[in-house]
Amino acid sequence: MPDLDPTLTDPDKYKVLFENDRVRVLDFRDTPGAKTKPHHHPNSVLLTLSDFQRRLTVGDNVRDVTVEAGKAQWSPEQVHTGENIGTTDTHVVFVELKD
Amino acid sequence: MPDLDPTLTDPDKYKVLFENDRVRVLDFRDTPGAKTKPHHHPNSVLLTLSDFQRRLTVGDNVRDVTVEAGKAQWSPEQVHTGENIGTTDTHVVFVELKD
Repeated sequence: MPDLDPTLTDPDKYKVLFENDRVRVLDFRDTPGAKTKPHHHPNSVLLTLSDFQRRLTVGDNVRDVTVEAGKAQWSPEQVHTGENIGTTDTHVVFVELKD
Repeated sequence: MPDLDPTLTDPDKYKVLFENDRVRVLDFRDTPGAKTKPHHHPNSVLLTLSDFQRRLTVGDNVRDVTVEAGKAQWSPEQVHTGENIGTTDTHVVFVELKD
């Protein structure tokens, strides 16, 4: 879904740290109140570098999450929007897998 | 190389943050002067969370590296030892790919 690539939908928030034929690594940062446009992530590892609270919208499903810094989790392929609903900046790294 | 798994060779430095059938995510920390035992990494993404200086020994090849925090790089499969030759703690995350 090239037109939903987050580096194109939200270039102020997503920065490419590294890319080869196996992976692409994205740095994401935003501030309280910020909201992304809808964008696509392939299967990825999500590493949290700050504590944060976000509202994630996937289709009709709306989910609020509270996450601590220093965690790693699996993020399955999805199209979503994210909104920073907390009082702290969000800083995460996505390691996208090229299946 | 299960006997060269870094969580077994250097359990004081390596901690598993996450694992599934696609990846294993390792947190690594050490302090100036510390040295690992020889251990094996599969193809991995290396994320640097601190500035550091290390001496990496792969077979007969000895290489000193200086790395900044906030970088991502590809780390091809290898057996190595690492020594913290700087004045700062090393903190990195390995996202190991299960090929």
